Amino acid sequence: MATYELYYWPTIPGRGEFVRLALEDAGADYLDIARLPEDEGGGVKALMKMMRDEGNELQPLAPPFLKSEGQLIAQTANILHYLGPRLGLCPGDDSSQRRAHQLQLTIADFITEIHDVHHPIAVSLYYEDQRAEARRRAPLFISERLPKYLAYFERVLERNAAADRAHLIGTATSYVDLSMFHLLAGLDYAFPRAMAQQASRIPLLRALHQRLPARPRLAAYLASPRRIPFNLHGIFRHYPELDVSEPS
Amino acid sequence: MATYELYYWPTIPGRGEFVRLALEDAGADYLDIARLPEDEGGGVKALMKMMRDEGNELQPLAPPFLKSEGQLIAQTANILHYLGPRLGLCPGDDSSQRRAHQLQLTIADFITEIHDVHHPIAVSLYYEDQRAEARRRAPLFISERLPKYLAYFERVLERNAAADRAHLIGTATSYVDLSMFHLLAGLDYAFPRAMAQQASRIPLLRALHQRLPARPRLAAYLASPRRIPFNLHGIFRHYPELDVSEPS
Repeated sequence: MATYELYYWPTIPGRGEFVRLALEDAGADYLDIARLPEDEGGGVKALMKMMRDEGNELQPLAPPFLKSEGQLIAQTANILHYLGPRLGLCPGDDSSQRRAHQLQLTIADFITEIHDVHHPIAVSLYYEDQRAEARRRAPLFISERLPKYLAYFERVLERNAAADRAHLIGTATSYVDLSMFHLLAGLDYAFPRAMAQQASRIPLLRALHQRLPARPRLAAYLASPRRIPFNLHGIFRHYPELDVSEPS
Repeated sequence: MATYELYYWPTIPGRGEFVRLALEDAGADYLDIARLPEDEGGGVKALMKMMRDEGNELQPLAPPFLKSEGQLIAQTANILHYLGPRLGLCPGDDSSQRRAHQLQLTIADFITEIHDVHHPIAVSLYYEDQRAEARRRAPLFISERLPKYLAYFERVLERNAAADRAHLIGTATSYVDLSMFHLLAGLDYAFPRAMAQQASRIPLLRALHQRLPARPRLAAYLASPRRIPFNLHGIFRHYPELDVSEPS
């Protein structure tokens, strides 16, 4: 039995990817249950079964969730809060853990806003059925929210002089840095032109994004088929009409 | 000096109210800084000053935040995670705290969706300037998301037989119960007709909502001017055109 069982949709990076990155970077012993074949107890069926299992003390509302030490833990930031010190991806003291978690929750808020750019009306509707509203939301997101969040995180790096402005929290790579790496990768995929315009304003974030893949286990993961490419079904989607216009 | 200093906008219940309710119900020694007169070091000025204070180890992106033991703690659910065991509003063991936090984060997700019903395009625009989109989002929220979240929390109560199905977590009132009380009050204010339609499906939640104000400190708070009434500037807003139609 693996130490950790991750339950998440098998075909999108989605919110599960933030947990995957921490597990992979730490070289943790884990199974990505829904990506295993059904005859090995995997697939979406296994995910749905675990989500509804009456044996769990608290059922999750939605994936991702993690099984560890007989407990089922849901909510991405809550899972990372649990895993952080166990995987050596967060300092062990309460105050650092609280600050890491605060940053992760701010990342979570940002992610929700990014997702809702292409889904402003309802998660149950296709993008194509809310494109008009998305096209109204996108320029406001790009001119107001994107720079606001990025400037905030840049400032957090800037103020962490003890870590040479290379880490969002503490003096070593944490799960927050890994999440920021993925967030920037996702934004580059979804809004390449808007992100190019932001680049000069966020040198420390860009440096973090460039530096992280030098970590051997992370590099191996990113090059493996375990890393699901961004696509048109997750949080980060590339709809060119939602990005800033091409310079004419 | 008070044990806790809460920093939040002084004129809306907003996200700060979830923290206020815990502090008030516990009879905690706290100051609601932005609601103090400016000549006593209060007001929005004091809030903005603290938010930008370079002396903080980590600056918050937005209110609410709490000052306690020399630390500044932001993100509503993170604040409650910190306060819970200290105020006697959460069991002290890690596993219970994690489950309480998981529920609080799910409440936070729900709150974001509720807010975005009246603000589907941008927080920077008035409701009146995104009413058309809000009118498209509202019926889908009411038919899909509202029942989904409510049914989930009802089920959490239902399964907590050890607490006579009266508490969301553990066997005593926790900050999660207090947040649920406020969430239901807010939904009743914003969507009275939709909530009337839901009532028979959520008897345990309705019972919790009715029972909680019997707690003396909570009752005193709710009857005091410290409790800011719902209004048209917060998360929960009553725009009749966004509720279900009156039966004809």
